[in-house]
Amino acid sequence: MKIISGGVCAAKGFTAGGVHCGVRKNRTKRDLAMIFSEKKASAAAVYTTNLVKGAPLTVTKNNIADGYAQAVICNSGNANTCNADGIEIAEKMCAIAAETLGISAKDVVVASTGVIGQPLSIAPFESGIPAAKAVLSTDGSDAAAEGIMTTDTVKKEIAVEFELGGKVCHIGGIAKGSGMIHPNMATMLVFITTDANIAPEMLGKALSSDIADTFNMVSVDGDTSTNDMVTVLANGMAENECICADGADFAEFMKALNTVTVYLCRCIAGDGEGATKLLECNVSGGKDVANAKTVAKSVICSSLLKAAMFGADANWGRVLCAIGYSGADVDVNKVGVTFKSPKGEITVCVNGAGVDFSEEKAKEILLEKEIEINITLGDGNACATAWGCDLTYDYVKINGDYRT
Amino acid sequence: MKIISGGVCAAKGFTAGGVHCGVRKNRTKRDLAMIFSEKKASAAAVYTTNLVKGAPLTVTKNNIADGYAQAVICNSGNANTCNADGIEIAEKMCAIAAETLGISAKDVVVASTGVIGQPLSIAPFESGIPAAKAVLSTDGSDAAAEGIMTTDTVKKEIAVEFELGGKVCHIGGIAKGSGMIHPNMATMLVFITTDANIAPEMLGKALSSDIADTFNMVSVDGDTSTNDMVTVLANGMAENECICADGADFAEFMKALNTVTVYLCRCIAGDGEGATKLLECNVSGGKDVANAKTVAKSVICSSLLKAAMFGADANWGRVLCAIGYSGADVDVNKVGVTFKSPKGEITVCVNGAGVDFSEEKAKEILLEKEIEINITLGDGNACATAWGCDLTYDYVKINGDYRT
Repeated sequence: MKIISGGVCAAKGFTAGGVHCGVRKNRTKRDLAMIFSEKKASAAAVYTTNLVKGAPLTVTKNNIADGYAQAVICNSGNANTCNADGIEIAEKMCAIAAETLGISAKDVVVASTGVIGQPLSIAPFESGIPAAKAVLSTDGSDAAAEGIMTTDTVKKEIAVEFELGGKVCHIGGIAKGSGMIHPNMATMLVFITTDANIAPEMLGKALSSDIADTFNMVSVDGDTSTNDMVTVLANGMAENECICADGADFAEFMKALNTVTVYLCRCIAGDGEGATKLLECNVSGGKDVANAKTVAKSVICSSLLKAAMFGADANWGRVLCAIGYSGADVDVNKVGVTFKSPKGEITVCVNGAGVDFSEEKAKEILLEKEIEINITLGDGNACATAWGCDLTYDYVKINGDYRT
Repeated sequence: MKIISGGVCAAKGFTAGGVHCGVRKNRTKRDLAMIFSEKKASAAAVYTTNLVKGAPLTVTKNNIADGYAQAVICNSGNANTCNADGIEIAEKMCAIAAETLGISAKDVVVASTGVIGQPLSIAPFESGIPAAKAVLSTDGSDAAAEGIMTTDTVKKEIAVEFELGGKVCHIGGIAKGSGMIHPNMATMLVFITTDANIAPEMLGKALSSDIADTFNMVSVDGDTSTNDMVTVLANGMAENECICADGADFAEFMKALNTVTVYLCRCIAGDGEGATKLLECNVSGGKDVANAKTVAKSVICSSLLKAAMFGADANWGRVLCAIGYSGADVDVNKVGVTFKSPKGEITVCVNGAGVDFSEEKAKEILLEKEIEINITLGDGNACATAWGCDLTYDYVKINGDYRT
């Protein structure tokens, strides 16, 4: 398996593109993305657990209930959520895309991201969707990645090449994250494409299984969005023997999928609103995976710890505190904590109590851009990883006047 | 019932004081508080639910297991938590206080607040506790309130006068809050004194019942502290007939207690670290109290909403979002939201969807220092209130380098 370029267009038969259609006033930023598969593809998606759900999610869920889709259309700048005519607008977006692409409206995945509760006009899409189709190309992943960004500061895309039964396959994805990012699911928009041949039910199984350890372990601000989802389209053009059951090929596909999703998780966490650092919390020695996950998530979500990391302050008491209130069944007297970065590793807590350490060395380690907070629980063999970011002045600034 | 001055010394027989003993290096800020009752008092306390508990909590719990106490000793600047010799130090603090005051060490309530995981030396207390005793007076509530402050910017105290069976009674309290404040319990230090005559078991019942609607409904940052507790001492010197069971007197006592606790909750929320605004979320029309509370807490804890309130941005979509992921059983299509302050009230959402409103008027309302976020669920008659504060640059600043 190797990392390649091309994003969502790395897989055979997929083209993508992005344009400015006018949902956003700022003309310098694309606000509409399209992804198209030459052949109808197996489709799977997971959705936010928020009771308030964006209208596009309902429409998408309905459209891919048969297990297939052929195109994705997604705008940024308006979430199409809490609007009386939301479903109608999302369905119209699908209808326009279908007519433009010459496919069925039931084969369109539709998504929106942006402000909640502002009416979304269909007008920008009437010209925007045909314009997006006009720019579809195998080089279009980058433009599509830009089209779905909100307060993201960098585009997020990746692709990998792998083999299934001697056939070269590809899987790639684009994502947007930034704010309102919190497990569980679906706390961001992620679109993944692959030319692997895999049955819809196995694709769904792969995705559901994968997100439990990836996107559901990312938190930027503890707010679970109303709109977000992860979708995968698999068009089978790699011509591998169809994956219709568990086995070596399914395992290999899962591995490739996981490479894409972990990379995108780290991108989303590291580019959280206002973030200056990516935080990765690795928990080992857990009694079971559920406990290890609960600890990892609690630590990564602590506002106090996040602020300490922003200040490069090795305030490990806040790690212990977050473990203590996590609800996990742990023996706090066995807990160990180390901080690690490219500058080295430092142990700050053993058996639940502080140990002498060099504040100077700790500062040097914590001034880096990627920090690991490594926790040992001493209770068993279960492990878990969660990703987050620091809490900064800019998070407050961005969210203090998001709409203005 | 009326509000009076005097804080924890308003009740007969109580004196208090605060000194600088040297736990903190800054000599201009008192770091040790003492409260003393002339007579042994009924005692009740509630403690943090964090598995990592400060050593003083364990010692206090043990000391008041018999239902009685006579003195409180509390330092700020060091939490005495995650220290190998924590229990020993807390017990020595009690022993010194007992010797100084001529009471039993088992009648001392001990508390500490500050940095976690730094060894606490007994040395400052050897001279500090006698010094605190030397300044004990009926005017000492203010000095004691200062002695327990950490990043608090204002002292928090209140007292009320009320009658039980023709006898004038008093109840007063001091509190510290600021950071690491989150339900459930015991997310701050609160010391309440009263001269009401009430049996320990009824005092415990009153406190446990009260905090469910007061201190457990306050959140500053979602971090449940390791150290905090609420204690009440009742010395009976008002000479009312002892409250030994439910009834009118118990109800009257509960009312007085609630006046003290709600006031202190609002103080703690409004003086949250970096806060510029007190937020009060009132939920009505809930299916049951549990649902109403879940909604109120979720809204008050949303980082995104807190940042929007800092920016006086009527971004009500974030209220809906927080209701949606709260886990409460609500029909999001029935939800209504209004914002209210001394400048007026404005409805921004009806039946789960936005309504036209004046952004200018909303801004004027949200620029005030105390904001109500009022939510109707349309599902029943249950109500709940939660208190919090906005998320500001200063929260990040304070917590980015708390230890330095």
